[in-house]
Amino acid sequence: MAYIPLRKARTMIRSVFRRQEQMSLKPLSVVLLDPGGHPIAFERQDGAAPGRFEIARAKAYGAVMLGIGGEAQYARAESQPYFALAANGAFDGKLVPVPGGILIRTGKGTVLGAMGVSGDTSENDSLCGVAAIEDAGFVAEP
Amino acid sequence: MAYIPLRKARTMIRSVFRRQEQMSLKPLSVVLLDPGGHPIAFERQDGAAPGRFEIARAKAYGAVMLGIGGEAQYARAESQPYFALAANGAFDGKLVPVPGGILIRTGKGTVLGAMGVSGDTSENDSLCGVAAIEDAGFVAEP
Amino acid sequence: MAYIPLRKARTMIRSVFRRQEQMSLKPLSVVLLDPGGHPIAFERQDGAAPGRFEIARAKAYGAVMLGIGGEAQYARAESQPYFALAANGAFDGKLVPVPGGILIRTGKGTVLGAMGVSGDTSENDSLCGVAAIEDAGFVAEP
Amino acid sequence: MAYIPLRKARTMIRSVFRRQEQMSLKPLSVVLLDPGGHPIAFERQDGAAPGRFEIARAKAYGAVMLGIGGEAQYARAESQPYFALAANGAFDGKLVPVPGGILIRTGKGTVLGAMGVSGDTSENDSLCGVAAIEDAGFVAEP
Repeated sequence: MAYIPLRKARTMIRSVFRRQEQMSLKPLSVVLLDPGGHPIAFERQDGAAPGRFEIARAKAYGAVMLGIGGEAQYARAESQPYFALAANGAFDGKLVPVPGGILIRTGKGTVLGAMGVSGDTSENDSLCGVAAIEDAGFVAEP
Repeated sequence: MAYIPLRKARTMIRSVFRRQEQMSLKPLSVVLLDPGGHPIAFERQDGAAPGRFEIARAKAYGAVMLGIGGEAQYARAESQPYFALAANGAFDGKLVPVPGGILIRTGKGTVLGAMGVSGDTSENDSLCGVAAIEDAGFVAEP
Repeated sequence: MAYIPLRKARTMIRSVFRRQEQMSLKPLSVVLLDPGGHPIAFERQDGAAPGRFEIARAKAYGAVMLGIGGEAQYARAESQPYFALAANGAFDGKLVPVPGGILIRTGKGTVLGAMGVSGDTSENDSLCGVAAIEDAGFVAEP
Repeated sequence: MAYIPLRKARTMIRSVFRRQEQMSLKPLSVVLLDPGGHPIAFERQDGAAPGRFEIARAKAYGAVMLGIGGEAQYARAESQPYFALAANGAFDGKLVPVPGGILIRTGKGTVLGAMGVSGDTSENDSLCGVAAIEDAGFVAEP
């Protein structure tokens, strides 16, 4: 299997929202991208700000396009800020290098795509996303 | 209610996919936008091409931004082609003036947002979208 | 005087809206640009679609940047379509070559800026704009 | 009421300009955006620089799209600079995270849109905007 079926994408999005409720977080937005960085599924909870799609997508897009999760991108940005910011330009602004962009891999390491979560703190966004990916039987690289 | 709740957005997307199956259409992609043109929910059926999000969004975006459905935009493009093409540029390319972009209104006429459907012929895309919007109790302006 | 003072811009916008009411047109949006193509004033009547700012600005922007009104741009587009469409790209999409973009000149011919009107038919948009510019004592080049 | 009527937008802009005069500030530019980030009204005082529309809009746009006022965006930028800068790219450059972008809410918390003020110091821009929003009976989130 080299992609995330829509059925599985839905399951992961619902799983993120379950944690959002349990942890009483702000409304979240979640996108699933395929291995080419293109959207498979997206949902924005009622009450979330309208720009959350662009942020969620940009978190996930950077993860897929660079092959590096959002936490690792953020760490790299700390040591090499010009790379992070110039990469944003190189990808037409569709790259936000902070936690909440999570690579999704098979157990054997194949990249299936990425999830982007936005709405609460970057740390909580990432935490909910990682749990949902693992619950679905995939490997999360935050 | 001045917006489409996520629950209703899901219902409409599933309703489009039910018709896709009954009519044996190609895999479809469906987006729901809020009254400002920002995504609420999106799903792409397995097997659909990766660019379908951008097409579906651009159909719906044009409908919201101009306050005119895709069929009406297409008719205007026939009579005033420079408007249609230049408007694509004015909205940074995020406007595709063909059937499949459908305004969603309340019974009283308030715009709640728009649906964009892409994947089969523009006519079939539009037909499935209109039916799903009406099933959900809204008024469709194709 | 080489620019349109804000006070005059307001007067012209109100004058467009008076005609909109008298002629029972759809809600209009009106922008006034300075001789560099930058906004001085904009108003969108209640009920107009959200994308009308971009359309109104692009009509006026093309007029200022090319030194040709929207009607003349449209005529040129008929005879030389590749110019009109490529110019849209050259100005980052901010050029819509149809009636409703109107150059504003002094009696001596100096360009003071342009007005962009959008919301009804291009012809009605242009007609209301020209009348408002002339009422304010300027010369309109539609 | 889920939007700012044009009449109220005008009142708020005049109110900003009254304070500008009382405080002897530099010429100001003020934009009002709807809840989708699209312009309702804009005015630029005589003598203001031509780029002020883009700055004022970007302050207000970031507030609407992220659901966070300019002061709060600025504070976040201090602690998470890569988010602030990359978000600018994700919104095609139309996001300036400094004071002067102010969310406008009803008493019950519904977002009605945002105001963007630019021209003097960010602090004075924001101060004038907040006062004008409150005078109009809305809640300002700077």
